[in-house]
Amino acid sequence: MVRENEIRRAEVAVAPPVAEDAGLAFIGCIGTPWTSRLLCPRQGRLDGPDCRIELFAPWDEGLDGIEAYERLEVLYWLHESRRDLVRQSPRNDGSARGVFSLRSPVRPNPIGTSVVGLLRREGNMLIVRGLDCLDGTPLLDLKPDRTSFTPLAPPQPGDFETGA
Amino acid sequence: MVRENEIRRAEVAVAPPVAEDAGLAFIGCIGTPWTSRLLCPRQGRLDGPDCRIELFAPWDEGLDGIEAYERLEVLYWLHESRRDLVRQSPRNDGSARGVFSLRSPVRPNPIGTSVVGLLRREGNMLIVRGLDCLDGTPLLDLKPDRTSFTPLAPPQPGDFETGA
Repeated sequence: MVRENEIRRAEVAVAPPVAEDAGLAFIGCIGTPWTSRLLCPRQGRLDGPDCRIELFAPWDEGLDGIEAYERLEVLYWLHESRRDLVRQSPRNDGSARGVFSLRSPVRPNPIGTSVVGLLRREGNMLIVRGLDCLDGTPLLDLKPDRTSFTPLAPPQPGDFETGA
Repeated sequence: MVRENEIRRAEVAVAPPVAEDAGLAFIGCIGTPWTSRLLCPRQGRLDGPDCRIELFAPWDEGLDGIEAYERLEVLYWLHESRRDLVRQSPRNDGSARGVFSLRSPVRPNPIGTSVVGLLRREGNMLIVRGLDCLDGTPLLDLKPDRTSFTPLAPPQPGDFETGA
């Protein structure tokens, strides 16, 4: 069962983070078939149901050129997640492990990331597959997936540095 | 050449986003060899130089179990980036395209993501390869890479839904 807001046996809560180091703007909204956290997939799948990503003005102009990419990285704000559980028990079985060894939505900065398949663009809207989030999730960012993106800008010295 | 803070020909700036929809806490700090944006790689490489990811207390406890993963997704705050360029010209050649079809650090919510190789953990510090960011970049999140992570929690109905 997905967590509602309870703390489970063996979990460790710390003081909620003071979230004032930087501020986010919600630049769009994500539409999915899942209206409750009890129904969301644990992980999106590229053959999953169609979902919508709507960009708010003036950010819709930033979609120019996006049709060139089949795979996009999507960043979104997990707006229903608590932020204070440094150890979590995904199986609720009395064992727990650190939040950074989990892809749980409960995190100090609850940012979700997915790689989606872009089916088409309709104006300020993208139709995609591969999301796992709740209907109405706020959008933070969109980028071409790293595996399909080649920088357009000239290379820099660091591009050629390798480890010892 | 990397952008310092100038606006280039053909680029479109909008009003900077009002970044008050959600707040971030910097939970750690990233150490890399690159002390100027003019030196950073355009994209990290898994055979790049060793970098350090330091977790601040109390979040270091969240590292428990992370050694099980060879690949981690790292989210960080691109603290030197402007946020208002909806169309950008990576080649500075008079052509421009939308920010969401680029992996430029200049974005309405300047969050960088990398997939890194974990070499080892030293207490509250991880030694990794594959980063591309400036020395001193604030850390937002760490997760096992999606391609190597299998959810521990029981499946939910959405896990089995496919598109028409």
